[in-house]
Amino acid sequence: MASLFTPNSQTYDLPDPLPLDGGQSLEGVRIAFETYGALNDARDNAILICHATTGDQYVASPHPITGKPGWWSKMVGPGKPIDTDRFYVICPNVLGSCMGTTGPGSLAPDGQPYGLRFPVITIRDMVRAHMALLDHLGVERLYAVVGGSMGGMQALSLSIHWPERVARVLLLATTAVMPVQNIAFQEVGRQAIMADPDWQGGAYYGSGRAPDAGLAVARMAAHITYLSEETLSEKFGRRLQDRDAKSFGFGADFQVESYLRYQGSSFTGRFDANSYLYITRAMSYFDVVDERFGPGHNARLSEAFAGVTARFCVVSFDTDWLYPTAESRKIAHAVNAAGAPVSFMELAAPFGHDSFLLDVPALDRVITGFLSR
Amino acid sequence: MASLFTPNSQTYDLPDPLPLDGGQSLEGVRIAFETYGALNDARDNAILICHATTGDQYVASPHPITGKPGWWSKMVGPGKPIDTDRFYVICPNVLGSCMGTTGPGSLAPDGQPYGLRFPVITIRDMVRAHMALLDHLGVERLYAVVGGSMGGMQALSLSIHWPERVARVLLLATTAVMPVQNIAFQEVGRQAIMADPDWQGGAYYGSGRAPDAGLAVARMAAHITYLSEETLSEKFGRRLQDRDAKSFGFGADFQVESYLRYQGSSFTGRFDANSYLYITRAMSYFDVVDERFGPGHNARLSEAFAGVTARFCVVSFDTDWLYPTAESRKIAHAVNAAGAPVSFMELAAPFGHDSFLLDVPALDRVITGFLSR
Repeated sequence: MASLFTPNSQTYDLPDPLPLDGGQSLEGVRIAFETYGALNDARDNAILICHATTGDQYVASPHPITGKPGWWSKMVGPGKPIDTDRFYVICPNVLGSCMGTTGPGSLAPDGQPYGLRFPVITIRDMVRAHMALLDHLGVERLYAVVGGSMGGMQALSLSIHWPERVARVLLLATTAVMPVQNIAFQEVGRQAIMADPDWQGGAYYGSGRAPDAGLAVARMAAHITYLSEETLSEKFGRRLQDRDAKSFGFGADFQVESYLRYQGSSFTGRFDANSYLYITRAMSYFDVVDERFGPGHNARLSEAFAGVTARFCVVSFDTDWLYPTAESRKIAHAVNAAGAPVSFMELAAPFGHDSFLLDVPALDRVITGFLSR
Repeated sequence: MASLFTPNSQTYDLPDPLPLDGGQSLEGVRIAFETYGALNDARDNAILICHATTGDQYVASPHPITGKPGWWSKMVGPGKPIDTDRFYVICPNVLGSCMGTTGPGSLAPDGQPYGLRFPVITIRDMVRAHMALLDHLGVERLYAVVGGSMGGMQALSLSIHWPERVARVLLLATTAVMPVQNIAFQEVGRQAIMADPDWQGGAYYGSGRAPDAGLAVARMAAHITYLSEETLSEKFGRRLQDRDAKSFGFGADFQVESYLRYQGSSFTGRFDANSYLYITRAMSYFDVVDERFGPGHNARLSEAFAGVTARFCVVSFDTDWLYPTAESRKIAHAVNAAGAPVSFMELAAPFGHDSFLLDVPALDRVITGFLSR
């Protein structure tokens, strides 16, 4: 299986087709992943880290395209809150993505890239691939599963559908059900991509053209939702970019405009537009109660946690308006109602949704504490 | 001067070039406008209504393209809060727009459409055109100027730069300085338009192609910011559109997706993409203190109101996250500090920023009361 990018990660080729929630099954799935630390003899020190929408397996290794440090290198490493001297850390690239794991840019069995022939997947499908990887790595029961944002959705899904395989669940800035406002923002992003003529119905691989303009717009719109008004005001305010006065034109007069353009254009160098479609579609579909009881059910969130035995830690951030504290509180209440141990806290941090990725010392303490016993 | 649309409104052709904040002046400006009621003999019963970003002069008349009732027909008419039996109501299409007033789709003196040759304008430039119209109509001093959102920016600008010409200023869901988050959202919209190959550098008039896809994406992104999470949840939730189960495809599975696509595509039938660029650019530039003291000033908002004698009424809505109450409060405090009379209230309404356009009985009472004496 090819991928848009050739990772320098380890890979694992699933021997069997992967069954999917959509009813199909996917042959020849490859999973690209990074590991840190070593699995102990008892095989009980493994932590699975699930990445967010446009994240990847390079949680604590330099990114092979951008050269930047891993996206959570402040959190994962020797002596860090997720201590690789103690834990065996596994971070797979999710199904549908583009950093080595099979996705729409991979070759289908007919030797041509899938494009839109790739099946629409769900968060649970991503977790199915993770579980196959854990089987391969000899990890029967995780010490913990950890995830922020879409990573938290995977962690939730794992805890509910494979309850015997995890002892601790750490959820950051996430939700049990995708809120409608986020469905709306992600639809805008997908429409921006699909409106780009270079998208070519998704069959752009090898054409020399890709929907970079549309993908950049999608990224810009999403990026605003990751930040707080507070961050935007402090970081940029209404300051002008490299000029003393307004240009009376359509260039990037304001620093925030220049910043967004950069975020948009640099993103297209490391991410595949079709992967963006599939992954945001999976998120819009995410409803963990639905996943457990099927569509048309009448169940409550707490019922979805029936039989779950892991300990939970749920963390939200006060400036996160994408997955606000209310969503985390619902999870905590439901876990509690289902009789599983849960601690819940809202942390103060100025960075909006992105707080879980940034420098929030209180988060380091929470994670260290939760994983310590 | 031609315009993208031929309005059935009254028009006024400015005899003199209109000076602009950007330093240029614009020849042959036409203003399309609607009036309701009659100017009394004392000429002291005129109310100027300033429309919002994508609004128009059809405040209480059917829209000539969509056939829908005027955008504020619940508020303006005989016996309504803005009572046309008593008041002479004037609503001009703003400079830069596309419903008959000169904008980028109009013909330049060389007989070709302006396109991007149209000068970048400001909110104060829009108000300059309004003042020329008032001169023409024989209105020396307005009974009131009224505006919501970008209309409120115009009303503020008028009250500060032409203080002798208005007795009452009614500001709804607006701001004295464009917040950075909104600059960011509007930049995304402009990038979506400019990324559309059919935009053709703005010279698409007469080409048979227009950047409808980009404009639709811009509208979709903006539309989300006009609504509250509460409205989205109540109106759509995660309900599916005309289907019992998820399609596992990229169609509009969710009602909110279908609604947004409709909002985007229907918008392109009544609005010009270049006008969208120019009007949002004017908004991003808006800072009423800047307007008064020029760039690089060190003045406070209250200083901008020095010499202003009108009575102010400032209204915000509790679910408006685009121009939140804090922005209105700043205006009210500054007016008060400058010694002008001001009343300020935050109204409870579930509809987000759009509340000023929708059915909020408390708003009717506030407006009736404020205009009564």
